Amino acid sequence: MLIVAIVGGSGYTGLELLRILAAHPGVKVVEITSRQYKEKAVASVFPHLKGFYDGLIFSGPEKFKNLKAGLVFCALPHGASQEVVPVLLESGKKVIDLSADFRIKDADIYEEWYEEHTAKNLLKKAVYGLPELSRVAIKKAKLVANPGCYPTGAILALYPLVKAGLVKPDSIVIDSKSGTSGAGRQASVETSFVEVAGAFKAYKIGSHRHTPEIEQMLTIAAKEKMSVAFTPHLLPVSRGILTTAYASLTKAMSAHDVHALYAKFYKGEFFVRIMDEGRFPDIAGVRGSNFCDIGVYADPKTKRVIIISAIDNLVKGASGQAVQNMNIMAGFEETTGLKNVPMAY
Amino acid sequence: MLIVAIVGGSGYTGLELLRILAAHPGVKVVEITSRQYKEKAVASVFPHLKGFYDGLIFSGPEKFKNLKAGLVFCALPHGASQEVVPVLLESGKKVIDLSADFRIKDADIYEEWYEEHTAKNLLKKAVYGLPELSRVAIKKAKLVANPGCYPTGAILALYPLVKAGLVKPDSIVIDSKSGTSGAGRQASVETSFVEVAGAFKAYKIGSHRHTPEIEQMLTIAAKEKMSVAFTPHLLPVSRGILTTAYASLTKAMSAHDVHALYAKFYKGEFFVRIMDEGRFPDIAGVRGSNFCDIGVYADPKTKRVIIISAIDNLVKGASGQAVQNMNIMAGFEETTGLKNVPMAY
Amino acid sequence: MLIVAIVGGSGYTGLELLRILAAHPGVKVVEITSRQYKEKAVASVFPHLKGFYDGLIFSGPEKFKNLKAGLVFCALPHGASQEVVPVLLESGKKVIDLSADFRIKDADIYEEWYEEHTAKNLLKKAVYGLPELSRVAIKKAKLVANPGCYPTGAILALYPLVKAGLVKPDSIVIDSKSGTSGAGRQASVETSFVEVAGAFKAYKIGSHRHTPEIEQMLTIAAKEKMSVAFTPHLLPVSRGILTTAYASLTKAMSAHDVHALYAKFYKGEFFVRIMDEGRFPDIAGVRGSNFCDIGVYADPKTKRVIIISAIDNLVKGASGQAVQNMNIMAGFEETTGLKNVPMAY
Amino acid sequence: MLIVAIVGGSGYTGLELLRILAAHPGVKVVEITSRQYKEKAVASVFPHLKGFYDGLIFSGPEKFKNLKAGLVFCALPHGASQEVVPVLLESGKKVIDLSADFRIKDADIYEEWYEEHTAKNLLKKAVYGLPELSRVAIKKAKLVANPGCYPTGAILALYPLVKAGLVKPDSIVIDSKSGTSGAGRQASVETSFVEVAGAFKAYKIGSHRHTPEIEQMLTIAAKEKMSVAFTPHLLPVSRGILTTAYASLTKAMSAHDVHALYAKFYKGEFFVRIMDEGRFPDIAGVRGSNFCDIGVYADPKTKRVIIISAIDNLVKGASGQAVQNMNIMAGFEETTGLKNVPMAY
Repeated sequence: MLIVAIVGGSGYTGLELLRILAAHPGVKVVEITSRQYKEKAVASVFPHLKGFYDGLIFSGPEKFKNLKAGLVFCALPHGASQEVVPVLLESGKKVIDLSADFRIKDADIYEEWYEEHTAKNLLKKAVYGLPELSRVAIKKAKLVANPGCYPTGAILALYPLVKAGLVKPDSIVIDSKSGTSGAGRQASVETSFVEVAGAFKAYKIGSHRHTPEIEQMLTIAAKEKMSVAFTPHLLPVSRGILTTAYASLTKAMSAHDVHALYAKFYKGEFFVRIMDEGRFPDIAGVRGSNFCDIGVYADPKTKRVIIISAIDNLVKGASGQAVQNMNIMAGFEETTGLKNVPMAY
Repeated sequence: MLIVAIVGGSGYTGLELLRILAAHPGVKVVEITSRQYKEKAVASVFPHLKGFYDGLIFSGPEKFKNLKAGLVFCALPHGASQEVVPVLLESGKKVIDLSADFRIKDADIYEEWYEEHTAKNLLKKAVYGLPELSRVAIKKAKLVANPGCYPTGAILALYPLVKAGLVKPDSIVIDSKSGTSGAGRQASVETSFVEVAGAFKAYKIGSHRHTPEIEQMLTIAAKEKMSVAFTPHLLPVSRGILTTAYASLTKAMSAHDVHALYAKFYKGEFFVRIMDEGRFPDIAGVRGSNFCDIGVYADPKTKRVIIISAIDNLVKGASGQAVQNMNIMAGFEETTGLKNVPMAY
Repeated sequence: MLIVAIVGGSGYTGLELLRILAAHPGVKVVEITSRQYKEKAVASVFPHLKGFYDGLIFSGPEKFKNLKAGLVFCALPHGASQEVVPVLLESGKKVIDLSADFRIKDADIYEEWYEEHTAKNLLKKAVYGLPELSRVAIKKAKLVANPGCYPTGAILALYPLVKAGLVKPDSIVIDSKSGTSGAGRQASVETSFVEVAGAFKAYKIGSHRHTPEIEQMLTIAAKEKMSVAFTPHLLPVSRGILTTAYASLTKAMSAHDVHALYAKFYKGEFFVRIMDEGRFPDIAGVRGSNFCDIGVYADPKTKRVIIISAIDNLVKGASGQAVQNMNIMAGFEETTGLKNVPMAY
Repeated sequence: MLIVAIVGGSGYTGLELLRILAAHPGVKVVEITSRQYKEKAVASVFPHLKGFYDGLIFSGPEKFKNLKAGLVFCALPHGASQEVVPVLLESGKKVIDLSADFRIKDADIYEEWYEEHTAKNLLKKAVYGLPELSRVAIKKAKLVANPGCYPTGAILALYPLVKAGLVKPDSIVIDSKSGTSGAGRQASVETSFVEVAGAFKAYKIGSHRHTPEIEQMLTIAAKEKMSVAFTPHLLPVSRGILTTAYASLTKAMSAHDVHALYAKFYKGEFFVRIMDEGRFPDIAGVRGSNFCDIGVYADPKTKRVIIISAIDNLVKGASGQAVQNMNIMAGFEETTGLKNVPMAY
C-alpha cells in the first residue's frame, strides 16, 4: 500500500484527488493539509465523503514539513508551491505538483508570465507530466509538474500534426472553453452562480498564462518556435474543457488522412480516444473521467484543419492526470483507479 | 418627472430597480449610492446598462444624508436600513425600504428573529407594501416596507383561503424554492456556480427569518394566530420562487370551488394571474415580470388544498413590487413600467 | 463471472446500468436490446462508452426470448415489462425489473393508477427491492421489482418513524423535486433544454403514480392505512431527487431524539448516510452514487418533523439499486461496484 | 396603429415576436398561424402571455392566403417560406421573412447549401435586413430577408475591418457559440435538457449553412471573395451567441486603433455597443435585448485581431432585428419597443 499526502487539499483539485484515490486499491491518503479547515474532519467539512476517509483530519499548512507519506500531491496555488516543493524533495519525497511552478523550463518566461521564481534549480529536474508524451521520463522522475488544464487539451489536440511537421508556424488558433471549476474553489462574485449561469464570455484575451506552456510543448514537437493565439472562455458548466484548435497545414490533407495520423499516433493509449471519423467530442462524454476525446476535420482545398478535444478539467486536466502520473512513478498499472465510464448524463 | 434615488444600489435589487425604471416614462434616477463602486460610472461597472444612465455615477454611502430626490428606494441590508430610513423621512423624503427592517410590526418579534431595532417608533407608521392587499394604505404612506420575496409568494398564495376562514390553524406547510439571486450579490463559496449548479438543498429549516413575516400577514387575515412550517430551498436558477403551500380546510371544497374563490378574490388584479383550472405555474412563466401566477388543487376527500404560486424574486419579490408601490404612492397608473411580457424562454 | 443482459437498454436507466456494471469485477453484460438502435454497436451510438463494451451490439427487442444471460435487468417501460418478464422467468432467468409493473401488490390498485395488468399471478412472487428494508426476501427472489425513484427517497425518509408508530396517519406531506433524467430519454418539447433551464414547476399534483407505491410501503410499516399528499416537481438538473417530507408525530420529540432513532435504524447500512445533527443533504452530495443521505428536523412544540432525503434518481433511484439487488441475489458483497465517492462538483 | 400578422407563430421566434411587440405602442398583432395549435387561444397554450393577446387565437397554416394585416412576419422554416412569401407579396403585404430563403442572392449557392428554390425571382428584390449596414434599402423594401443569428453576430463583428480593406482574405476564423433556442422549439433527444446541461460541443464543422451568408456579406464589404472557417458550438444556455472572430490584418494595428475604427464605424448606432477598451462582451449582458456588444483585441506583432461579439440570438439574431426592420419599413422610430435594459442576471 502506497501512502500519500495531499498538501493544499481543500480546493477542487484536492477534493478530486480524494474522490479518485478512494477507488484506487493500492493507495491510502494518510495526510492532507488545509489552512481553512485545519483540525476539522474531512468528511465533516465535505459530507459527500462520508463513508470514505472517515478518520482523516485536515492538518494545518505547516504540516508539509513533516509528512510520513512517500509521495506527495502538491495542490497549492502557483507561487506557494515553489516554497513547499524543495522541502519535500529534500526530505526524499516524490512530488507531483499541480501548480504552474515547475511546468515552464525557462525561468525567464516563467517570470515574465507569473512572478519571481525562487526554486529555479528545480526547473530542469522537473518532468512535464503528460504521460502520453513523456511516459519514460515520468517513470524516473522525483518531481512531476502536472500539466495545466488548457494545455492538456490543447497539446494533445495538436501534438501529432505538429510533431509530423505538418503545421505552419504562426497559423495556430486555439479557442478553448472551460467549466467554472477551473477558476478554483473560492468566494468571488465573478464565479457566483447568478453571474455565470446563462452567461458566456472570453477572458484574458491574448494574456492567459497557459499560453507559454502550450507554446513550449509545441515548440519541442516542431523543433522550431511555435506561437499560438489562445483564447479561453468561461462555460456555464462545472467541469470540462472543449478546445477547438485551428491550423494551416503545409500540405493538403483529407480528413481521412488526418484521422489516420491521429489514430496511429495515439494507438494503445487508453485515455486518448479518437472519435469515429466525422464525429466530434462533447465535454459530457468525458465527464468525471480521465479521457481526452479527439475529433478531426480537414479541408484539403484550404489546407485548414480543425482539431477538437474534450477533457474533464478536474480529471485529465488536473487530478486524474496526477494519479496517472503517480501510477507510472509508483509502478502501478497506469489506468489503476481511473477506468470508470464517464458520467455523460 | 419624478426624481428618485437608490441607496445601496449595486446589489441585485438595486440593479433590478435600474433595469425596471429605465422603462418607466415618468421617473428619473438621479442618485445612487454604493460603498464598493463609489465615484465609478454605473454603466462602466455594469456594461449591460450602457446606453442607459450614461451620466449616472455611484456616490459613496454617506450620500443618503443629502439627496435631491423626493422618493428614495432603500436597498440596504437589514440593520443598515434602520439607520438610514429615519434620516430620509426627517428630510421629507418618501421611502420604499426593501430590507426587512420595517416589515414586522412587533419589535419584540423583530428582535427575536433579527437583532436590536433602533427605530422602533417607525414600525407603526410603516405600511407593509403588498399592493393587492393594502393598496389604500400604501397610497398615503411615507414609508413602505417592501415585502420579502418568500412572503410575497406565500402570502398571495394563502391569503384568500385564510381570509375566508377556511384554513385550520397549524395545518399550513409552505415548501418554497428560490433562485440563487435571493442570496444577494456577494462573494461566497456557497453560492458559487460550481456549488449551486446541479445541486439542490433545503436550508434554514425551521429558522428562516421570513417565517414571522408570513405569520404576521396570515394572522391578520385569519384574525387568529396562524403559524406555519416554512422550508426554503435553493434552486439552481438565477431568478424565481415557486411556493408549494399545503393546508387543511375546515370544510370539504372541490378544486373548482377553490379556483372560483381565487378568481374572485384577485379579480381585476393585473399582476396576479390565476391559472386556468387544473394548470399550475412555472417560475419561467413569470421571469423578468411583476406577475404572481397561482394554481390551485383541492381534494374534497382529505380536505387538503395545495396552492402553488410563482414569482420572480427580483421583480414581484423585490424591485418590481417596489416600483408598483412607487406608482401607487406617486399617483402613476399602477402598472406603469411593469407591463412587460415575462421572458419565459 | 455472472453474465447478465439488459432488455430495453438505450434509455437512461439502461445506460446507467452499463456505466455502473463496467466497474463491477464479477459481472459481464453479454446482451442488450434496443428497438431504436438494433444492430448498432453500443459504443458507436454512445461514444462515452468507447473503451468499454467494445464488442457489444444492440439486439432488437425480440431478443428477450432467447437470452444466454442468467440474470436479466428489464429496463422497459411499465406495460411492456409485464409481457416480457413472465417469459424470462419461465426460461429460468432471475429478473430485476425496473418498471412499475411488479411493485404494487394489489392488482386493483395497479389497474386504477396504471392500466390493465396481464401478469397478475406474478405480483405476489415479486419482491419489492429496497434492500435496506427487505434484504432477506431479495436474496431468495426470482423476480425483484426495483423501486421507483421517488418512492425510494420518500420511503427511506419516513420508514423509521412510521415503523415506530410515531406518525399520525394522514399527516404526511411529501414534497419531492426531481432532476429531468427521471422523465426518460425521449424527444419531447416539455423536457427540452430551453423549457427546463431556469424553470421549475410542480406536475401531476395529486395524481402521480408513485403515490400508491409510497403508501403501500408506509402502510406495511405502520400496520394501518397510511395516505400521503405527494407533490413532485421538475428540477433544472439532470440527476437527483430531494424529498422534503413533513409529518405530525403522536408525541413530542426533539431533533436529537429523531436523529438518534434514524442513526440506530440505519446503523450498518453503507448506502444510507444520516447527516450530522443539524445538517441536511444536497442532491449534489450523492450525485453518481448509490447513497441516500438523510437529515432530520423536529419541533417538539408543534410535534412536527421534517425529514429530508437526497438520492441520485438514476443510481439509488434506479440502476444502482438494481445492481445492489443483483449483488444480493447473486451472492456478491452488497456494495460491489457501488462504492464510488459521489461526484459532488 | 399598424396591424401585423405572424405566419408560423408557435416557435421561439414567433413567441419572441409576441413578447417584443406587446411593448410596441404602434403595433397590434391581429393574426397568427400555427399548424400545431390551430384554433387554440394563444394565452392558453402559452400561459406566460396571459394578460396580453387575450383575444388572439391561432389560425391554421392556410390562413396566410387571407390576412388582414398590412405587414407580415414570416417565421416559417426555410423551404416553407418560399411558398408563402410570393403569395403575401402578390396580395400587397410587406413581408419580413425570418427564414433563410431570401438571404442568399445567388440561387446556385442557395441550392448548394439548402435545397431547390422555387421563388428565385424574388432573390434580387429581397433586402438583407441588417439595419446597421443597409438601412436605406430596408426603408423601401417590400421583402426583407431577416439575417440569420450567427451571421448577425459574425458580420457585425468583422464588417468594419473588412470594409476598410484591412483583412487578409482566407485568414478569417469564426468560432461561434450559441444557446439552445437556436435549434428551434421542437421535440428532439439532442436538445433535451439532460443531453445539453453540463455539455458543450461543436457541430456541423465545416458545413453549417450560415457560412455562405456570412461570406456573401463580407465579400460585398471587401469587394473581393472572402471565405471563412466557421465553427458553431452548442452552449448550455437558452439564449445568446458569442462569436470569437480571428483574422490577420494587412498591416500592424494596435488594439487602440482597432477600437477607434469600430467606435467610429458604429457611431450613432443605438444597438451596437462598442465595449470600453480592453473589455469584452458576455452574452448575459445582452440577454433579452436587441444589442450587439463588441470588444476588440489586436496584437501589432503578429498582426492578428480578435473581435468578439455578443447578441441574443432570439432578439438581435431574429425577432428583435425583425421588429427593428419593421420600424424602419413602417416609419417608426427605429428603437421603438426595443429600448429595454438587458436582463443580465
